[in-house]
Parts: sequence; C-alpha cells; structure tokens
Amino acid sequence: MTALGQHLLAEFTGCNPGSLANLERVTSAMLQAAEASGATIVTHSFHHFSPHGVSGAVIIAESHLAIHTWPEHGFAAVDYFSCGSVDTASALVVLRAAFGAAAMETLSLTRGPLGRLD
Amino acid sequence: MTALGQHLLAEFTGCNPGSLANLERVTSAMLQAAEASGATIVTHSFHHFSPHGVSGAVIIAESHLAIHTWPEHGFAAVDYFSCGSVDTASALVVLRAAFGAAAMETLSLTRGPLGRLD
Repeated sequence: MTALGQHLLAEFTGCNPGSLANLERVTSAMLQAAEASGATIVTHSFHHFSPHGVSGAVIIAESHLAIHTWPEHGFAAVDYFSCGSVDTASALVVLRAAFGAAAMETLSLTRGPLGRLD
Repeated sequence: MTALGQHLLAEFTGCNPGSLANLERVTSAMLQAAEASGATIVTHSFHHFSPHGVSGAVIIAESHLAIHTWPEHGFAAVDYFSCGSVDTASALVVLRAAFGAAAMETLSLTRGPLGRLD
C-alpha cells in the first residue's frame, strides 16, 4: 500500500552565509529546485526572517517546498512535502550547490495512515 | 543549548470530509490556528489539490504552518515549523475542532545542528 505523502526533511550545514542571507538568491534557488524536481509551481512566498536569514515556501501542485535559513550558523532547514512523482533528490542537488553547503543530512517520512501499513 | 527550530508534524484522522474539501474552511482554520498560537502572519496561499483536497501554507514571521488534506480518506497532514515562542498546541486544538478529527498524532523534531547537542 502506498503512503499518501512523502515528507523529506533536509538540513544543510557549512553553507555560504551570504547566499543564505540574500532573499533573491534563496527565492531563486528554491524555484529552481522545485523546477528541477519536475514539480508544478503554483505560487511562492519568501521574506526576510528576524533577525537574520530568509524564510518561505513554494506551493506546488504536488504539495510544498519550504525553507528557513540561519546565515549566522551557515545553516538551512528545508522540507519537501510531496504527493506524486517528483524527483526530490534533484531539488536537493540544486539547493546544496546554491548554498555551497559542506554537508547535507536528510530524513524521509511517509505521511498518512496508509503509509503506516507499508 | 537550544535548537534553532522546532518542527511539529501532526496527522488528523477520522475528519469530516466536507471540511477538508472546502478551500475557504481550510484556509480559515489555518489562519485561526496560526493566530491561536500567537504567530505573526506574513502571508498565506491555499489551493485545491488534484484530485481532491486542499493544500497550502501560512507563512509566519516565526516560520510556517502548512497543510495537505485528503477528504476521501478523512485525513489531513499538518506541519508547523517554528523558531521562537509560539504555542503550537493551541494551533492543533483549533485545527482538530475545525476538521472534527476523531484522532490526532504528533511528532516533534528539533531542527538545526544545535538541536542535536541538546
């Protein structure tokens, strides 16, 4: 039985602080990541986060791709919730390159009651 | 040492399908939930999800609150990423009531390298 959704959590460390602090760069990287995964972009919203960093989400037809960055720690937390056939790995490759991340850790969770019966 | 962020995943089962399929109701419930938690709402975006259900997110100053609903399964998946002092439990109370959920399961994760040192 198939899960209703997949929720991929990714953490990027050792990133370029300048990239993480730049609203336009983060927005552009997230849109490119969504496109690289083959997702259909519905809309997006990004803003500067207090006191540093950028926060926001791309709403896609297949669900969402969200990010929060901490330039002062060279850290970005991403989550990609997907329902359907998107290539989330390709999205992560785009983001890792855009942020110049030294390392990446991921955690993939199934979402939905059907997922628990796998 | 404190984690950079908290990521609360919540799954609502046995929900009223009509509530989960209604774009306005889901949007309203999510905005009320964000307000109940004391978050500062920046913007929001919700849309009908194919073939059923509603998908979207509230972008808050403290991060994001996202949802995806499957009316045909009476199921809603919520995630609340927060940085700072928001009362996520109050948000879940609002959502559970709005959807008439029979049950709710939650998973709380710390996000960020500092979180791993707790």
